[in-house]
Amino acid sequence: MTDDAFESAEDRLIARYFRPLATHRGAFGLADDAAAITPPPGRDLVLKTDGLIAGVHFFPDDPADGVARKALRVNLSDLAAKGARPLGFLLSIALPRDIPEDWIAAFAAGLGEDAEAYECPLLGGDTDATPGPISISIAAFGTLPLGTMVRRSGATAGERVFVSGTIGDAALGLRLRQDAGNASAWGLDAAMSDHLVARYRLPQPRVALSELVRTNASAAMDISDGLAGDLAKLCRASGVSADIDVTRVPLSPAAARALGSDPSLMEAILSGGEDYEILGTLPADWIPDFRAAAERRGITVTDIGRIVEGDGAPSFLDPSGSPLVLARPAYSHF
Amino acid sequence: MTDDAFESAEDRLIARYFRPLATHRGAFGLADDAAAITPPPGRDLVLKTDGLIAGVHFFPDDPADGVARKALRVNLSDLAAKGARPLGFLLSIALPRDIPEDWIAAFAAGLGEDAEAYECPLLGGDTDATPGPISISIAAFGTLPLGTMVRRSGATAGERVFVSGTIGDAALGLRLRQDAGNASAWGLDAAMSDHLVARYRLPQPRVALSELVRTNASAAMDISDGLAGDLAKLCRASGVSADIDVTRVPLSPAAARALGSDPSLMEAILSGGEDYEILGTLPADWIPDFRAAAERRGITVTDIGRIVEGDGAPSFLDPSGSPLVLARPAYSHF
Repeated sequence: MTDDAFESAEDRLIARYFRPLATHRGAFGLADDAAAITPPPGRDLVLKTDGLIAGVHFFPDDPADGVARKALRVNLSDLAAKGARPLGFLLSIALPRDIPEDWIAAFAAGLGEDAEAYECPLLGGDTDATPGPISISIAAFGTLPLGTMVRRSGATAGERVFVSGTIGDAALGLRLRQDAGNASAWGLDAAMSDHLVARYRLPQPRVALSELVRTNASAAMDISDGLAGDLAKLCRASGVSADIDVTRVPLSPAAARALGSDPSLMEAILSGGEDYEILGTLPADWIPDFRAAAERRGITVTDIGRIVEGDGAPSFLDPSGSPLVLARPAYSHF
Repeated sequence: MTDDAFESAEDRLIARYFRPLATHRGAFGLADDAAAITPPPGRDLVLKTDGLIAGVHFFPDDPADGVARKALRVNLSDLAAKGARPLGFLLSIALPRDIPEDWIAAFAAGLGEDAEAYECPLLGGDTDATPGPISISIAAFGTLPLGTMVRRSGATAGERVFVSGTIGDAALGLRLRQDAGNASAWGLDAAMSDHLVARYRLPQPRVALSELVRTNASAAMDISDGLAGDLAKLCRASGVSADIDVTRVPLSPAAARALGSDPSLMEAILSGGEDYEILGTLPADWIPDFRAAAERRGITVTDIGRIVEGDGAPSFLDPSGSPLVLARPAYSHF
């Protein structure tokens, strides 16, 4: 029996497609059972896991490279909102037995490009066959100075609430992906429609903001389950409430156009989820410098309202000052 | 709208069943987006991820508490074989939408008992609904003194090969679980049959051996894909081969009885996998002290053969000195 007979198809797939991503020396080229890293002295390790399942978090026919990027990026988004710099990640992937090798090649290529771009190398992983849908789970690790992880719980009354980027694009993009006919109903041209779908398919984690958030924000989290629901979580953790000025919530031109055509889309925009923007709070007089510093990093941040005393859910106030009533404030899997 | 309306069913499940397991202060009671840990100074962090899927790694009707224990233990087994002490873990779990709450309660109870017993608290997690089978992925973390992770690659010619516990039980247990009629065919009584099925259902990670392995073994790994295939991996990584004396491979009384009834079961015993015992190498003259120290920790280790020069697959020699030919030396998912 030759040595090659001992190398399984699984080993060969890993060696061919995933070993090139394991650039951290502690990954041992994926040739050992575990990774070993020496944590940087004076820094805490921030740990996060988030998964994607075909048919739940992405469409089975979405391009594999984008699925891989999204799987990593949803975790990088959390690290950024907590103020952490990426260190590396573990990948656990379950694939149908008849998955085309092309799919795996494209997945690994997309993952590798993002791992390099975000300086977050693959440290190790696990590959399984599944009778179910493609399932990807990533555990991502970041570092930051000891004791400085930005919590949900630090917001105080009088502070301002900020968000990065624009809100609601991904939720509208999902609706377009489900029914392309929405584009004409909402008066969107092809570029606008593409923009929204791209925002659903491929989050833009605000890694470039992480250091600014860490040194400025009193509380922060990433928006994955919708602005309304995630702000409610932040407020609950902080023992406060918030008044949000709905007209200040930043919208992309495409989302603004859609909302203009169908005002009922405000619900989806505020609570649809998958924004992967950063939501945070800071003292009012820090806002101008914070905005300017973020702008220098190529990211717009917008002041959308204020933290107030109280323990009720945040209010989203329309131009008349009346609170909107949201039917389903946050995405839940159950 | 009351604050409660903002708390989703998912949040309630997590708070009720999983928060009690998050005893590490850096888990923030699962009330934040990520965990933060301060790595112990002077120690490396060892990282491992391994997953279980219903219908692949366990039977859908296996008791939920045992499934949870197995999911954690397969990772603890890797940490132990690498010489690391458990620190904590992240849990990513995908559940069918109609999963009974009882299942979740039992799963969390089993997981919590093991997390406490192995001093490996839950640090964070992710819960998703899936249209597919129950899927559990755990990323486990351990620590050890800087640069001391036991690699696969340290074995040298002349050293002895050892294994902990007994080999082949889980592979036979799986065959009994698939076809209970095997018990009478193999001449097993109920206790023997139960023993083998239990060894399949519930690995016994050799956490108590980790420090001894770290300070003695030149190379080590846990046996998850079968002794033959995993020893081949260790040899390949070390640039050596091995001669194993098949008669020295330690068998439980149940496995010995089954093998006596059906000698062809040797194939399953040597390459069936899921042993979750430790395989390692060390100098021949260290064996007596190593065995005695392991015995004091309640674990038998057995010298099964020697490392030899060469780059071929390990030989499993029968009493006449002839090598066995294994049809399928290691488990592969693809």
